[in-house]
Parts: sequence; C-alpha cells; structure tokens
Amino acid sequence: MPQMIVRGISVPQIQSISTALIEELAQVCSCGTDNFMLECLPTVSIFEGKQVNTYPFIEVGWFERGQETRDEYASVLTKHVLSLGIPEVEIAFRVYREDSYYWNGKLI
Amino acid sequence: MPQMIVRGISVPQIQSISTALIEELAQVCSCGTDNFMLECLPTVSIFEGKQVNTYPFIEVGWFERGQETRDEYASVLTKHVLSLGIPEVEIAFRVYREDSYYWNGKLI
Amino acid sequence: MPQMIVRGISVPQIQSISTALIEELAQVCSCGTDNFMLECLPTVSIFEGKQVNTYPFIEVGWFERGQETRDEYASVLTKHVLSLGIPEVEIAFRVYREDSYYWNGKLI
Repeated sequence: MPQMIVRGISVPQIQSISTALIEELAQVCSCGTDNFMLECLPTVSIFEGKQVNTYPFIEVGWFERGQETRDEYASVLTKHVLSLGIPEVEIAFRVYREDSYYWNGKLI
Repeated sequence: MPQMIVRGISVPQIQSISTALIEELAQVCSCGTDNFMLECLPTVSIFEGKQVNTYPFIEVGWFERGQETRDEYASVLTKHVLSLGIPEVEIAFRVYREDSYYWNGKLI
Repeated sequence: MPQMIVRGISVPQIQSISTALIEELAQVCSCGTDNFMLECLPTVSIFEGKQVNTYPFIEVGWFERGQETRDEYASVLTKHVLSLGIPEVEIAFRVYREDSYYWNGKLI
C-alpha cells in the first residue's frame, strides 16, 4: 500500500509518469517507493447505447493518513495525470481498516 | 458519480438498457444523465476447479443519499437488468466520503 | 457473498485450489459453498516505467463477521495461496452494509 487502481488512462500513459509520480508520492507518505501498487484496470464504459472512453478515475486504497496528507497526495497524483494532456481526473480514497488487512495471514 | 461497476452482465446487454436506465436513474437522483458512469468489468469466475459464468453483480459508488433514494435506485437498476431475462442480480452500494473525493485535485 | 476478488494470481492457480479452499471457507463461515464468489481480476501493474507482475492481493467483500472469523478466514485463504508456491499475499476485508445490499431489488 498505497494501492492505486486506475481506470480510463492507458498503460503507456501511466508507464510514462510512474517513476516520477511514485518518487513524489513516497515523499508525501514518508515511505519507500516499493510500497506502492499502481495498476491499470480495463473496463468497458457505456453511455447512450454506445461504448465510450472511460472517464479517468483513480481509486487509492490505503490506511487513514489524515486530510493534509490526503490533499497533498491527490494534488501530486492530479498534477502528473494532467501533465499527460488529460483534462480531467477524479480521485477517490478508500480506507482499509487495520483490523482487516493481512500480510501472509497476519494483521500488519 | 454515481458509478456503476458491472460484473457478469455482457457489454451488449448493458448497451441495450443503458439509455433508458440512466434516464430513469437521473430522475431518482435529481441530476443530469452525464453524471453517471456505467462500466463493465471483466472477471473470470471460478467454482469447483472450473471457469463458470460470473454472477450478475453491480457495485454502485456514490455519496450517501439515504435509504429511500437507495431503495429506489436499486429497484430501477434491478428492473432493467431483469428485463434482459437475467433471473438474479445483486447490487451493493459503496459510499465515498466527501472529504476524500477529488476532481482535478480539489474536493468536490 | 463472501466475494473474493483476486489480483496477481493466475486463473489456473486459483482453479487448482478452489474446491478445497471454498469447502474450508464454508466451514469457517458456517454456510454453503455456493455462497462464495471467487473471481480473478486482470490488471496491468506498473513500476518504474515497466509492466511488472501484479502483487498477489485478494479483497474479500462480505458482511461483518467479527475479528475471530476474519482472522480464521484470512488464515485459510493464505494457507491455500502459499501452497501454490507464492511467497507473499495480502488480503483485505471490505464490509458491505446490510442496509445497502440488495438481491433482486430487496434488502437481504
């Protein structure tokens, strides 16, 4: 963790920003870069009977870190996505409970 | 938002109900049709060692709107899915926190 | 329910453990084996500009069953995943609200 599940942004686009993005996020979170998961999720979006481009959306799954860190995280993530020429992105944070997250069967 | 992530129902099936479905849901939510995201997510379901059809399941991600609107939303969504000849569908709602949802880096 | 959404473990690997896994989980949950959904979700993971193997991760979606059952569930699930020769797996539980989960339009 943190996990980022990306929809509506292509794999090559994410590849092109991944190194600088994760380095900057690691500073925001004061943790190593190897804690981050960055995954593109393929979905098929539908509107008015047609397949359409998926709206750029990133869901961040992590433990609660407070509003200030969350704002900063969203700001960094948004900056890198918009640098791709993408005009809009939405980011939602989802909090995992510490009593419900296991590494190799043990609470972490 | 609202976002609907659909599993176990095919893209053409969702295409065929999408226009009427979203128009009706927009009335339930008192918002424009262009707020809705409707996305099919491909998964491979497994049971007893075999690949099987994925159980029809829709996860709705949105801000809290209360029990009455939720019931009505589920009712409309279910009605359109069952109209495809699908016998069963489960729908779960997931609430995003307003302090954790960003549009272009700003809380919305 | 429970639903298990699997990332970073292949479909044949999950097939090979599915029968024994679900039988054991059904005992943990005191319910029938046909309540379980086990789905592999394909994602593309990215690190340092390259596509990399996805870290083995399973998200369990269910109703709250308490710490003891959760620990036991995680333990059984981990044991079967590690039996595949996979060295690490993370498991997160996500709780559905009973006022927000519908079967065919009705709260269950």
